[in-house]
Amino acid sequence: MIMAVIGLGRMGAAIGYRAVQAGYQVLGYDMNADACNHAQELGIQPYHTMSSMVGSAQVIWIMVPAGNPVDNVLQEIIPHLMPGAIVIDGGNSKFSDSIARAKMMHNKGFAYLDCGTSGGVYGKEKGFCLMVGGDLRAYQTVMPLLKAIAAPDGVAHVGPSGAGHYVKMVHNAIEYAMLDAYAQGFQLLKEGSFAQYNLDLARISDLWNHGAVIRSWILELTHTVLARDQKLEHVGGQVEQTGTGRWALEDAHGHNIPVPIIEQSIKTRDWSMATGGNYATKIVALLRNAFGGHTFIKK
Amino acid sequence: MIMAVIGLGRMGAAIGYRAVQAGYQVLGYDMNADACNHAQELGIQPYHTMSSMVGSAQVIWIMVPAGNPVDNVLQEIIPHLMPGAIVIDGGNSKFSDSIARAKMMHNKGFAYLDCGTSGGVYGKEKGFCLMVGGDLRAYQTVMPLLKAIAAPDGVAHVGPSGAGHYVKMVHNAIEYAMLDAYAQGFQLLKEGSFAQYNLDLARISDLWNHGAVIRSWILELTHTVLARDQKLEHVGGQVEQTGTGRWALEDAHGHNIPVPIIEQSIKTRDWSMATGGNYATKIVALLRNAFGGHTFIKK
Repeated sequence: MIMAVIGLGRMGAAIGYRAVQAGYQVLGYDMNADACNHAQELGIQPYHTMSSMVGSAQVIWIMVPAGNPVDNVLQEIIPHLMPGAIVIDGGNSKFSDSIARAKMMHNKGFAYLDCGTSGGVYGKEKGFCLMVGGDLRAYQTVMPLLKAIAAPDGVAHVGPSGAGHYVKMVHNAIEYAMLDAYAQGFQLLKEGSFAQYNLDLARISDLWNHGAVIRSWILELTHTVLARDQKLEHVGGQVEQTGTGRWALEDAHGHNIPVPIIEQSIKTRDWSMATGGNYATKIVALLRNAFGGHTFIKK
Repeated sequence: MIMAVIGLGRMGAAIGYRAVQAGYQVLGYDMNADACNHAQELGIQPYHTMSSMVGSAQVIWIMVPAGNPVDNVLQEIIPHLMPGAIVIDGGNSKFSDSIARAKMMHNKGFAYLDCGTSGGVYGKEKGFCLMVGGDLRAYQTVMPLLKAIAAPDGVAHVGPSGAGHYVKMVHNAIEYAMLDAYAQGFQLLKEGSFAQYNLDLARISDLWNHGAVIRSWILELTHTVLARDQKLEHVGGQVEQTGTGRWALEDAHGHNIPVPIIEQSIKTRDWSMATGGNYATKIVALLRNAFGGHTFIKK
């Protein structure tokens, strides 16, 4: 089974790298030449056009920004796909888009899986968490490849087309609120009643990871971030929204489901963009950089 | 070094048990006879009065509800403490109370440490996370005992008197918001756009623990809870506040620190008590039961 990866940014390159490590032949395309060169160093065979590449692969993994870029890729590759090709969208597409695309692809004779991909930049070595929606037979066909890309036990078929991206959307909404929970807690430790004592936030974040109820991977990253610097004077507090948080909120509203904690978290991001944020949103910006490679503003 | 534990509920008994396992002689008092009997089975020597017990111990561990119960214990034991005794409040006392008590005890010649204790009912076997405030020399004296009670690397001196309970207060506030984040996410998975497909929430919670950014110990407990039952028809959605959440909010307001995510979480608990809550607050109730042994309403 040969896989072609379209979009060789941090995540796409890491996906391809893990497949290469597992012994798969992996082809890759990116419009950015540096990304292609880096991918080549990881063992991925770079191509200069999608159309020349996709005809040689049974599985196409698309890892490009949500929205039009995905549609553009599909329009370009469809005429060149081999019969029975399986196309996987591993990005953060809106679940309703994925449902429509799967239907369109099915009508043309291709299987289309939507795959929520979590794990961030650490996934390259540790493996990713893959939440897959769509045709069960296609899923079973690509299962060995997905297992190579995933962390141990980190892949599952969660439902029909769209379910993979829906589950990832909810995952991201939970992540929004978790980041705020930790970040606001650390701001309170820094600026509250014990401000004068300069509590050691790095020490406390590490302590909490040893036996406390709130221990987590995000808290481990928080320790990493705070061990470097606790003042954060040169970090901007702006935290961008990506689509997933807002889509989760829209879906909740559409079904009369209260998600106040997620709603609050989205408001806080909007506020941080408008005002420059505060200590807590600086921590969130650094955490997003630590796990996802998202850029933050350096002052 | 002999330790006396006052309050042999789930947490107090577990603290004593861990010290016994490490080879310490542990005395125990509780006004409830069943608690005393259970503690005895764990190797703790039960006493019928605090006054007859505390004179035999260098270290007194108080594990009773916050507020007046702690003051009552102190008034009762002070006349009977041995010179140089070290008293540790391991409960969820308000940090300002702990500062006042430490000063009062210091004036009487006793060291007083405030110790935030996290880890819940699982701490008995896995060890606790101990956040200790107060006199550094007293801390160093009891360090070997604390290490026996703690999870590996799960104990630290975090600051002066009150700091231990302050750090634990912030920990609990973070916990409030984390519980809501997961719970509201799972309600969205259950009742949102994919409601008709009955997404397997137990499967998804387990999947997320394998490589996803939001993996955590609370998410592992969520899997345990949802693997038993996803309908939760016989669970009440009422989630009580304990003091720590509100104290955190008060402290934040007093220092003009925005903690909107924590504030929202407290509002949701109040709402759940007034209305009976919803699917998300049922999950929170079950999680609090799973990690802390807190009771929930069975319908």
